[in-house]
Amino acid sequence: MKKIYFDYAATTPADPEVIKAMEPYFLEKFGNPSSPHNVGREARKALENSRETLAFFLGARPQEIVFTCSGSESNNHAILGIARSLKARGHHLILSSIEHHSVLEPALYLQQEGFKVTFVPVNEQGLVNPDDIKKAITDKTILIALIHASNEIGTLQDVSAIGKMARERGIYFHVDAVQTVGHLMVQVNDIGCHTLSLAAHKFYGPKGVGALYIRSGTPVMNYLLGGDQERGRRASTQNVAGTVGLAKASELCCARMEEEIKTQTFLRDKLITEIPKRIDQCFLNGHPRQRLPNNVHFSFASLTGEALLMSLDMVGIASSMGSACTAGSLEASHVLKALGLSDELAFGALRISIGRWTTLEEVDYFLDQLQEIVPRLRAANV
Amino acid sequence: MKKIYFDYAATTPADPEVIKAMEPYFLEKFGNPSSPHNVGREARKALENSRETLAFFLGARPQEIVFTCSGSESNNHAILGIARSLKARGHHLILSSIEHHSVLEPALYLQQEGFKVTFVPVNEQGLVNPDDIKKAITDKTILIALIHASNEIGTLQDVSAIGKMARERGIYFHVDAVQTVGHLMVQVNDIGCHTLSLAAHKFYGPKGVGALYIRSGTPVMNYLLGGDQERGRRASTQNVAGTVGLAKASELCCARMEEEIKTQTFLRDKLITEIPKRIDQCFLNGHPRQRLPNNVHFSFASLTGEALLMSLDMVGIASSMGSACTAGSLEASHVLKALGLSDELAFGALRISIGRWTTLEEVDYFLDQLQEIVPRLRAANV
Repeated sequence: MKKIYFDYAATTPADPEVIKAMEPYFLEKFGNPSSPHNVGREARKALENSRETLAFFLGARPQEIVFTCSGSESNNHAILGIARSLKARGHHLILSSIEHHSVLEPALYLQQEGFKVTFVPVNEQGLVNPDDIKKAITDKTILIALIHASNEIGTLQDVSAIGKMARERGIYFHVDAVQTVGHLMVQVNDIGCHTLSLAAHKFYGPKGVGALYIRSGTPVMNYLLGGDQERGRRASTQNVAGTVGLAKASELCCARMEEEIKTQTFLRDKLITEIPKRIDQCFLNGHPRQRLPNNVHFSFASLTGEALLMSLDMVGIASSMGSACTAGSLEASHVLKALGLSDELAFGALRISIGRWTTLEEVDYFLDQLQEIVPRLRAANV
Repeated sequence: MKKIYFDYAATTPADPEVIKAMEPYFLEKFGNPSSPHNVGREARKALENSRETLAFFLGARPQEIVFTCSGSESNNHAILGIARSLKARGHHLILSSIEHHSVLEPALYLQQEGFKVTFVPVNEQGLVNPDDIKKAITDKTILIALIHASNEIGTLQDVSAIGKMARERGIYFHVDAVQTVGHLMVQVNDIGCHTLSLAAHKFYGPKGVGALYIRSGTPVMNYLLGGDQERGRRASTQNVAGTVGLAKASELCCARMEEEIKTQTFLRDKLITEIPKRIDQCFLNGHPRQRLPNNVHFSFASLTGEALLMSLDMVGIASSMGSACTAGSLEASHVLKALGLSDELAFGALRISIGRWTTLEEVDYFLDQLQEIVPRLRAANV
């Protein structure tokens, strides 16, 4: 049977070059980078090289990078850390209504500590209107958080405009860039953010390692307490091999980005164009152009995404209904509801996310299978 | 030059078998375990097998294991999570005065949320007297936290006695077992703890993965917010390869434990006996027998641990002054101060921690070098 992976947004396979780069740091160069002896210094050197590589990739400075274990940790760290640091100054946060749960839940948790959260809406293509953010700002607003590209529908926000607005008003700006780093050129100074989250396994690096960019001077209370690692900003022995893999992944993405964006955009647009030609009553979610080069997201009337996903799986195609982080949930996606979708269309969603090794042949096979499966499911009414 | 690693307590080299077990999960079996398709299910299966293996090793049930990224995260999760869950019932925590910083700092942070913390002392060998804990208990006490074996001086606490006392009074009991799991047979039901922390890289597993045991029914508020992973108890895509490595490491430790305890205890006791024979004015820290089989910790008068460590490093021996997590700190170790050591002896500390690949020849080489270096440093007065 064919084995086609169309779920790169959930996790990417690691690039073989990434794993090769990590290998020496498992067995030979195994030191704890906090140890001052030779074995430790060797590990420390690899760790700091990784930090420099990643900083360069983001247009940041090495001392502005804190390695974490995941994008979720980075988001928790930024939201809780900035809010708690600035509590004396203000207690108001602004979020879009389509944030990832790892931004959303810390913000909701902060309500218990006296913070207030305003959610700004998105339009039917998933775009936040900067004017809505402007209107939500009060003299107590300390933080705006925005997902760079939606992990579900792929819509890219105009983060630079919002960054500029935040800076002009002295408000801190957090960007969840877990879906964009490695897929688009993400430069922290173009965005003008104060903090930015990323995760290695979303761009051909290993699972279990991420980073938080913290602009110099940004007040961020520590999240993981109890050690002097990461210049005193995060406890835990660093995952040296993981950071080496993260750095290697960023190097590879940097070198191949232009070409990959071109190839993936071509394949994405083929899917976006062909699917509605072959299947009636289906609707593209997200913005038609201002979206991730590797994201395709449709809602199909008169079927469930779950049945569609399982049927595709049976012919060797791995896809998704949306976020993997909440795959077991029985509720409709908060992102699709924010677009104004009916329950029927929210539950009839399919996300196809492509990547480095996706071929035109795979896209064609998928289209053929989809064309066969959808009418069958609709006829069976599942 | 010789390369002798006597800093296993800071981090262990991974066992080659551990890395071999992890390999398939980087490239081929790379799925996100939350994805319901075939690629995801394959990853999920590996993740759940890892959970079963680790649970078996600890005498726990698989559903009582939450994978984390480190021992520090596990400690943060347990301390913050139990305290916040039980705030309505009481606001009092009891800690030993020699806890790891990743237990200590979350507890101190909780003071801002209205909690009170009592520190119980240790005797000059680093032992907590259960009677001191008993005396510290009030009707507001909700949690007792105790480090199973000190990461610095190696003293083993009588956790079972304290677990029994806690249970009898309906108080939750957290054990930081980062230094004992893999080195001694740790059984959660013998200890009677409600939560227990461990980290893979302390017992021949990879860095960047740990676990928190949570006894069924224990109220622990989530720490890493925003995803349904780990049965809804921790956000973040799981580090599948890491958990496979953790499980393999626990299997290997289980199989070799009896023999390793014997070998390492022999080498440890040789060091404990020989060092004072060869060097005057040196003092063993920690309990002479009730200590980790791989830990040796001495204070040397009239020299600094830093100079000693660097001199040993120059002849190829990697050792430590104490905790790697705070290696850059200018303050004397809180653990050594809790023993009642003078500043001179606290700053003249050397930790030697041995492991799976330590040989008698290495021990002899170390003893010869130490005998040469210490008088030289004392003569030079550094």
